[in-house]
Amino acid sequence: MVDELFARFVAQLKERSLLEAAQSLLDWDQETLLPPKAVAARSAQRGALAGVVHDKKTAPEAQELLQALREEDGRLSFEQKTVVNEVGRTLDRALRVPRELVQAIAEQESCALPAWAEARRTDDFAAFRPFLERTLELKRELAQAIGYETDLYDALLEEYEPGARVTDLVAVLGQLRTRLVPLLKRIVSSPRPPSSRFTQKFDIAGQRRLGRQVLTAIGFDFEAGRLDESNHPFCSGFHPTDVRLTTRYDEGDLRSALFSSIHEGGHGIYEQGLEPENWGTPLSQWTSMGIHESQSRLWENIIGRSRSFWQHFLPAVTKIFPAQFSGCTVEEAYRGVNEVTCSMIRVEADEVTYNLHIILRFELERALLSGDLAASDLPAAWREKMKEYLDIVPQTDAEGCLQDIHWGMGLFGYFPTYALGNLYAGMLWRTAVETNASLSTELTNEQLDWLNTWLRENIHRQGRRYSAGALVKRVTGRELAVDDFCDYLEAKYTELYS
Amino acid sequence: MVDELFARFVAQLKERSLLEAAQSLLDWDQETLLPPKAVAARSAQRGALAGVVHDKKTAPEAQELLQALREEDGRLSFEQKTVVNEVGRTLDRALRVPRELVQAIAEQESCALPAWAEARRTDDFAAFRPFLERTLELKRELAQAIGYETDLYDALLEEYEPGARVTDLVAVLGQLRTRLVPLLKRIVSSPRPPSSRFTQKFDIAGQRRLGRQVLTAIGFDFEAGRLDESNHPFCSGFHPTDVRLTTRYDEGDLRSALFSSIHEGGHGIYEQGLEPENWGTPLSQWTSMGIHESQSRLWENIIGRSRSFWQHFLPAVTKIFPAQFSGCTVEEAYRGVNEVTCSMIRVEADEVTYNLHIILRFELERALLSGDLAASDLPAAWREKMKEYLDIVPQTDAEGCLQDIHWGMGLFGYFPTYALGNLYAGMLWRTAVETNASLSTELTNEQLDWLNTWLRENIHRQGRRYSAGALVKRVTGRELAVDDFCDYLEAKYTELYS
Repeated sequence: MVDELFARFVAQLKERSLLEAAQSLLDWDQETLLPPKAVAARSAQRGALAGVVHDKKTAPEAQELLQALREEDGRLSFEQKTVVNEVGRTLDRALRVPRELVQAIAEQESCALPAWAEARRTDDFAAFRPFLERTLELKRELAQAIGYETDLYDALLEEYEPGARVTDLVAVLGQLRTRLVPLLKRIVSSPRPPSSRFTQKFDIAGQRRLGRQVLTAIGFDFEAGRLDESNHPFCSGFHPTDVRLTTRYDEGDLRSALFSSIHEGGHGIYEQGLEPENWGTPLSQWTSMGIHESQSRLWENIIGRSRSFWQHFLPAVTKIFPAQFSGCTVEEAYRGVNEVTCSMIRVEADEVTYNLHIILRFELERALLSGDLAASDLPAAWREKMKEYLDIVPQTDAEGCLQDIHWGMGLFGYFPTYALGNLYAGMLWRTAVETNASLSTELTNEQLDWLNTWLRENIHRQGRRYSAGALVKRVTGRELAVDDFCDYLEAKYTELYS
Repeated sequence: MVDELFARFVAQLKERSLLEAAQSLLDWDQETLLPPKAVAARSAQRGALAGVVHDKKTAPEAQELLQALREEDGRLSFEQKTVVNEVGRTLDRALRVPRELVQAIAEQESCALPAWAEARRTDDFAAFRPFLERTLELKRELAQAIGYETDLYDALLEEYEPGARVTDLVAVLGQLRTRLVPLLKRIVSSPRPPSSRFTQKFDIAGQRRLGRQVLTAIGFDFEAGRLDESNHPFCSGFHPTDVRLTTRYDEGDLRSALFSSIHEGGHGIYEQGLEPENWGTPLSQWTSMGIHESQSRLWENIIGRSRSFWQHFLPAVTKIFPAQFSGCTVEEAYRGVNEVTCSMIRVEADEVTYNLHIILRFELERALLSGDLAASDLPAAWREKMKEYLDIVPQTDAEGCLQDIHWGMGLFGYFPTYALGNLYAGMLWRTAVETNASLSTELTNEQLDWLNTWLRENIHRQGRRYSAGALVKRVTGRELAVDDFCDYLEAKYTELYS
């Protein structure tokens, strides 16, 4: 009886997940391929499909079935409970949001996104401001509809990092900042000349080949995914067999596309590692964006910017770009991909300054949402904080508050998950090395395979069986803390900038 | 009251059309980009979305509203009547089809299509046969569910060519064959050496640029569309602002991608010319595939293979491929794009033999559907008919019965619309030249613009206000007949092969 109820429940879930996958394809296509005049049509398509999914989620049959299963709680298996609880939690949220608001948000995102892209292109914040204001209005309405205990921001954060609370984030990001600032000061006071190896001219066809090769080497499966181009790199998974990464190419700096590809590849490997047999249910979903980001940051930085990886990988780079890399030593390459500089663009920031970019955005978006900061004052506030945290000031809004896609996409409450990702990556890496010491000294195919398998079993295939904190505790034995990540950074950069 | 009912009706229609546009994107993506392992996932997504659209089409509210408007028939405007009648006609069809059959067909198409592609690649008809058999079963079930008067085939044909009947097609295609056969005999008995201009090596990047340039010249708007690659060229319109063409490139023959691009461009210009203000209703839908095909064939052949067009266009080709076209005269190019040969591949066939390819497919698919021909006997039957009609025999099934995508996609009843398209194109062209005589002697930008405007006003913007036959009668004053097309062919090829 319970099993039959549960099977019907799962069938409903899977149907909705299939429709959500179609929604994701509409979004992906808009970012990569959509003809410019088609923005309004796509916006309407997204609105219609979002409405259908919302209707299905909140249909009386769906709610009755959920209620029936909740009443059988004592007779459900651990996995069944996971599914019912997680669906219940997100449904409770969804039910609080009126259908009109859901559609309004979907349509607003479709309009705001191209407006952001155009405003960034033309460095015209004024043109984006009304879109930002409308998005903020809708997000406040959304947070009110969902409800929260003490801070409106928590209602939005819950979407990306279930269970996380602003007060905890403020504390942990404060500790992180306390350890980063002295480290950054030491580094800045012992500068090194920047490497010119990576800032020569690199043709895009070669960069494309290199990207595919590196992604294949770290375990991304191109039979079950793609790599395309978009304004802002992202990863979109429609199914473990269809995971799409994007990047953007800079002919004048090889690192830009290379590390953004590895970063998105880390996300992609997580998505490809979800259980196909439970697809469409929370058992086969990412558990939090912080965990998602731990995978991308681990591959991008802890692996991709390690000495051992470049030992293994430099010959492949040299083969594709012989003129640019002839005579380059592993040491030179290693130093070239680990330059610490206080720079404008978050996605191209080094490991040390990156989290200061995040703390800045976290503070600004909280102020925007609470109304303490007017949208019109955002450019000035951005410049002030950049000066305070990184001692530099952007000359344009395009490299200032317009640089990130998030606010154009309506992603408020998302930024802090990047910092959590770094902390979780540090914790996972410490445990991985404790489990397999050879990881710390060499990264050949064998070690990369080992790490992929270890992450797949311990993280990817767990889906939403555990919340982020519980999952990491289960794997590492430790609670969320800044130590592992900061120890890793301090050891690496003290050696590099001694 | 009627206007308010009608407004609600249109709102429902538009919502469904938006969901259908999302379905089309899933299909387009599958043909152009989908990672190989994702076929099953995509199939499930298509099935789910098809189910939603079917449910909405057949929902009691939708039917009640339609019924209410049908009862108000006398008080509806001409355009309102068009919408109500057309929606009623297609809904009546849809209502006869059980939801399970709709989903089964959608899922079957997703599986059969990649099976066809793989079978063609490996020339392995046996691997495709079970898929073909299952498709035929489902299509027979579909025809039974829809119903028909005398011939099962009519039930499927109605989907693509509303109002057309097998008996009429048999008659008109018979007349066509009667006039083509002697013309082809005369041509074959006065052969010319084939031109080698078009069969040199042409790099794909250059072909891509050329395709974009020609499509822009004939009026396709790249701000509202794209040109990509797929196994089999096609055109997919999600909205007048988002129309996507595909082609495939042959490095050894410039004509292959060039003419398939112009062909799909003709379809695309039709889709871009539909009324955006009535989008989502039959007022902004293609009226029949025969009319659709008249647009593609008119641009591909009557324009694209005319002497005047090459007068205008040869310099652009020579600029992109100077080595290959240095010293080429308009006359040589004109003859090069109008070689008549009895060849294997329909999409690369010349204007004269093309319709014999169609007649062959029309006869075979009728026999497959009726059960007179077993799927296992298809390869042999194909070879026999090729021998009979074109006096050649394919050496492989890949260039025989596996060459076309249609049966892999489940498109039965579609092929005859290609022949109708040629006949309609001939009729429209005669009237266009009667209206603007300069078309017959030169095709500069001015004439191309004139023709585009004339087609947009007379054909594209009419949507489904008239059936194919009524629309052509309205523009040309004549009933469907083979004369205009055959007169055009005979005049052109008698001069070329005198």
